[in-house]
Amino acid sequence: MTLRVDLPQGGYDIVIERGVLAEAGKQLDLKRRCLVVTDDGVPAEYAATVAAACETATVVTLPCGEASKSLANFELLCRAMLEAELSRSDCVVAVGGGVVGDLAGFAAACYMRGIDFYNIPTTLLSQVDSSVGGKTAVDFCGVKNIIGAFHQPKKVLIDPNVLSTLHPRHVAAGLAEALKMGMTSDRTLYELFRQGKAREQIDKVIELALRIKISVVEQDEREGGLRRILNFGHTLGHGIEALQGEDGYYHGECVALGMIPMCGDGIRAELVEILDSLGLPTRLNVDLEEALAFADHDKKCEKGGVLVIRVDTVGEYIIEKLPLPLWKQMIRERMQEGKE
Amino acid sequence: MTLRVDLPQGGYDIVIERGVLAEAGKQLDLKRRCLVVTDDGVPAEYAATVAAACETATVVTLPCGEASKSLANFELLCRAMLEAELSRSDCVVAVGGGVVGDLAGFAAACYMRGIDFYNIPTTLLSQVDSSVGGKTAVDFCGVKNIIGAFHQPKKVLIDPNVLSTLHPRHVAAGLAEALKMGMTSDRTLYELFRQGKAREQIDKVIELALRIKISVVEQDEREGGLRRILNFGHTLGHGIEALQGEDGYYHGECVALGMIPMCGDGIRAELVEILDSLGLPTRLNVDLEEALAFADHDKKCEKGGVLVIRVDTVGEYIIEKLPLPLWKQMIRERMQEGKE
Repeated sequence: MTLRVDLPQGGYDIVIERGVLAEAGKQLDLKRRCLVVTDDGVPAEYAATVAAACETATVVTLPCGEASKSLANFELLCRAMLEAELSRSDCVVAVGGGVVGDLAGFAAACYMRGIDFYNIPTTLLSQVDSSVGGKTAVDFCGVKNIIGAFHQPKKVLIDPNVLSTLHPRHVAAGLAEALKMGMTSDRTLYELFRQGKAREQIDKVIELALRIKISVVEQDEREGGLRRILNFGHTLGHGIEALQGEDGYYHGECVALGMIPMCGDGIRAELVEILDSLGLPTRLNVDLEEALAFADHDKKCEKGGVLVIRVDTVGEYIIEKLPLPLWKQMIRERMQEGKE
Repeated sequence: MTLRVDLPQGGYDIVIERGVLAEAGKQLDLKRRCLVVTDDGVPAEYAATVAAACETATVVTLPCGEASKSLANFELLCRAMLEAELSRSDCVVAVGGGVVGDLAGFAAACYMRGIDFYNIPTTLLSQVDSSVGGKTAVDFCGVKNIIGAFHQPKKVLIDPNVLSTLHPRHVAAGLAEALKMGMTSDRTLYELFRQGKAREQIDKVIELALRIKISVVEQDEREGGLRRILNFGHTLGHGIEALQGEDGYYHGECVALGMIPMCGDGIRAELVEILDSLGLPTRLNVDLEEALAFADHDKKCEKGGVLVIRVDTVGEYIIEKLPLPLWKQMIRERMQEGKE
């Protein structure tokens, strides 16, 4: 199945197909110099398959984990492109999760002020969310995604087969992001979760989540307004994530936690039940006040308060600016409830 | 006088006015957190004037010179913005020449994936060229502008009064870039030079050069084709520049040299005469072969050759792709002539 992202400056296709990874050479224009970026948490044969289809490939394998999304690795990729003599008409291919995609995409965005970028996401999290929409970035000084660019991919290949090699906990983290989209925008997607069918109908979950993502990106490429709904659960989520060490919660798990207090009283219990059944956390393992303090530097916190997304009815959202103290108080009250 | 740059995603104004620097507070929206970037070659009162008009200003003064256009300084500016707690609705103001503008513009392009950027160019070179058009970048591994972004300014303030504190050699270097635009696109502008009136009618030179620049940028924001005419003289020019130490030729001087072999036989002698009268170099002080070798890595050199801009008749240009050896041979022959 091919979904299309339509944008003023030229759109692109998302191909969702079991086995499409092996067809990278047919799907993408790799008859040029290609920088293939992956990490050591991704089966090496995925990047090797892509590299074999390239005219000239330079494969860079980064250490797995959020720490790789750094300015130092951005520099490393730029150096690799320079050494491989990539020109403006060459390209970058990401084969990995969100960390690889965000970093490689940012390098592609800046090298010679922007060269072609292909994304082959290999985690559920990146398949349902970060691989589409053109948000690229690195973390800096402990702040997530603070340095980055909007740089749309030329094409995205999503192969649900790769999920079979993914740890179940990673799958659950990805499901949390898909559930997030159902919560704000799609009762049908939410129902798959409520009925416990999300895992068995994973291809459908990917498709529905991406349809929401695409619709949002088409309406608001640069995150002026609507796109913020994708940040549902993310302000607190980022705070929790920032407090974690290497062994802490995954991004999707933090988003799962972050959604709980942003849901109205009528649906919060059901959400917690769904998260529980997916094996996602519903109780904090870090100090709430410390997590809340991170919002003081969150880039979604503009003058006069923090922009929050709330869901009181599944499939509908409320965007509102709350003064920081009020937002914190709301979370304190609702996270306490969650602990009972 | 106000010139308008019209672009699909929203245009911006260029205000050319003697004394406009002192009116920055009226002209720009500085009632927010502002990062003001300048260098120690710019009279400190310029940045101080701008800072005084800001609600909150953080002034960063970099060492003067091309070496400041580095990834390290990009990081330094990002850190400064983070420490000053700039949000997505805050801004960066450049007060300086092309180095300051390119670097500060790139930092503004990437911080939170892009915040507002104002440019107040204080050299003739940046006034007639680099301050308009949204090309931002840093140098990396000895390659100029290899990492960067297209990020248009919100407004550009050009105060010709600041040129009075500029060293005559800097003025000449700026005139070389203006002359470049006359050569490819405007006989009227060229005539000012041919008649020896460029210095006395500097405001007119700035206006005419910017009108060309604006027209080119409007037609080709992302440098897909036409915009390349602005690179007239730049391929060899960058090669010469890359070989220089701190005491070498200025950018505009390198462009002056770079234009000579790209002119047809009918106009080359007149160009050399004009350059001479402006105090610009017409003979190489570096090894020609070494300068030519840099084109092997020039980002304008794509597969199958180097894209060159040639001028055989003033006001008209030819864009063509030449195999590298042919381009080098042409320059060897024509630069030898220039040396006689």
